[in-house]
Amino acid sequence: MKRIQLSHGGGGQEMNQLINRLFFRHLGNDILLRTEDAAVLECNGSVAMTTDSFTVSPLFFAGGNIGKLAVAGTVNDLAMMGAEPQYLSCSFIIEEGLLLDELEQIVKSMAEELTVSGARIVCGDTKVVPKGCADGLFINTTGIGHIRQPGISARNVCPGDAILISRDIGCHGACLLSARESLRLSSPLQSDCATLWPVIHACIEQNIPIHSLRDATRGGISAVLNEWCEASKVQLSLDEEAIPVSDHVRGVCELFGFDPYDLANEGTFVMAVPTDAADAALAVLKAFSGQAAIVGRAEAATPNKVILNSPWGSRRYLDLPGGELLPRIC
Amino acid sequence: MKRIQLSHGGGGQEMNQLINRLFFRHLGNDILLRTEDAAVLECNGSVAMTTDSFTVSPLFFAGGNIGKLAVAGTVNDLAMMGAEPQYLSCSFIIEEGLLLDELEQIVKSMAEELTVSGARIVCGDTKVVPKGCADGLFINTTGIGHIRQPGISARNVCPGDAILISRDIGCHGACLLSARESLRLSSPLQSDCATLWPVIHACIEQNIPIHSLRDATRGGISAVLNEWCEASKVQLSLDEEAIPVSDHVRGVCELFGFDPYDLANEGTFVMAVPTDAADAALAVLKAFSGQAAIVGRAEAATPNKVILNSPWGSRRYLDLPGGELLPRIC
Repeated sequence: MKRIQLSHGGGGQEMNQLINRLFFRHLGNDILLRTEDAAVLECNGSVAMTTDSFTVSPLFFAGGNIGKLAVAGTVNDLAMMGAEPQYLSCSFIIEEGLLLDELEQIVKSMAEELTVSGARIVCGDTKVVPKGCADGLFINTTGIGHIRQPGISARNVCPGDAILISRDIGCHGACLLSARESLRLSSPLQSDCATLWPVIHACIEQNIPIHSLRDATRGGISAVLNEWCEASKVQLSLDEEAIPVSDHVRGVCELFGFDPYDLANEGTFVMAVPTDAADAALAVLKAFSGQAAIVGRAEAATPNKVILNSPWGSRRYLDLPGGELLPRIC
Repeated sequence: MKRIQLSHGGGGQEMNQLINRLFFRHLGNDILLRTEDAAVLECNGSVAMTTDSFTVSPLFFAGGNIGKLAVAGTVNDLAMMGAEPQYLSCSFIIEEGLLLDELEQIVKSMAEELTVSGARIVCGDTKVVPKGCADGLFINTTGIGHIRQPGISARNVCPGDAILISRDIGCHGACLLSARESLRLSSPLQSDCATLWPVIHACIEQNIPIHSLRDATRGGISAVLNEWCEASKVQLSLDEEAIPVSDHVRGVCELFGFDPYDLANEGTFVMAVPTDAADAALAVLKAFSGQAAIVGRAEAATPNKVILNSPWGSRRYLDLPGGELLPRIC
């Protein structure tokens, strides 16, 4: 079993071989293969730019691996701005000793996931650090893409807007938690890790007047919704029963004392649209996931907080999560 | 002494505080402070894009630190394509336990270094990994900027071109090597870590017809020149005596058995220009460093290799460095 050595990051022959035989073979395209200090792109108009470093542990999990996640995660941040994911950079920090086969599997997953949005990796970087100085592999992806629907913003939630969720929440966080606690075998839980550009593209094509859009990654829907309240100065009133949570996720949450609203997602988003566009938006979302739902509405009331309405008529604040959440979920 | 905790990367309150009180305070600008999933930029024309992850050890070294390096390194890769550095992303992977004071010092250095080129950090990401899963701090920066002088390429070295070096070589590698071997106190060696946009900008303003340009980072000038030979199908004939190497770097090389041509630089570049522009180019370079020199020429001869001509009339190939070069120099 061949493993990554320090010389694979030294800037010499071995690094050239790794780049040519592994990275270029799977990720190659005419821009990347020019191998200059920087890629040259043609851009005209408003462009979105976003970055994410992925440190997920374990590297492989049910429903994906760090490579799939690194592509989907950055592509999704572009999509959430109404931008078409086009160009990605990709930087690997590899711990000495990583199996070359594992790295290849990860790179293959990246190539596969790129086909979903049509984005391309146009520049890259490889660093190898001595054993013990990193944990297997970290990947940074930074993406840019032209904005196809301008004006989407966390500041644009308006009183009266309907709040939609694209599918059942918490799968990624619950899946990682189970994997680490070795509940792997007993659970059919899969991460929701997925590229969201196709569904967002469909919404844009259908002229859905999206006000706000955010994938609910670290901090889960709690973090997104609280951010919207603060940025848009609205109160969000949610119907707790309408929020889709699978029984498996609910079970993991009960076992470990987590709240599904705080759990990370990697292919699930929250959307705010004017009430009269809510049904049309839901129809598009339902075509991609039967679990999509309208879960609440924005109101002009104060305080600018998220309120959960239980089926029994009680109300509570959904606060920004605090303390040590599950680390290294992305 | 306050330290980074896992909760600083959790996506909740503590992370928000870290971002607002540290990153935004020093790096804030109107684009970054919009805090959407992605920054929105206006781009029109040819844009260069480049990425680099920095894993340098130690985090602080004579002449800089990982923050200064992370800004200069990515800005330089843009400058080497004739692009004006404009927008940078910045992603931190922080090991739990890092001193907040150290992190702040690093972030301050980034802010300072950005002023040299005028580039801005427009989006970012923060991850915290448990103690033992990273070595202090890794930083990824990815940059984009409009190309001000198109056509610069490793493929454009032409027979007859003069080869210039911007200053004495090997300082960064020698400095890091000394720091790790605890020769720190006995040596005045400083890293050459610096933003190169001002000197490249001056060359563009002076209409220097640059054919090729590359900062000699990992693998040193050996790596750059060998790449040029292969990409441009030329032979490079260098006058060994003309290549500027300081006595300190030479001393470190003799002590540890390194070749100064293989040592990393972080603010030193190699340039190819037509012979009749060589003096004008040298004049611009000399205004920034008295050590700048014309060191050789490109020839149509085969093999397409780098040839070092010694002052005694002997000739040898300068090969691409191989094996375990000094790890984690950038």
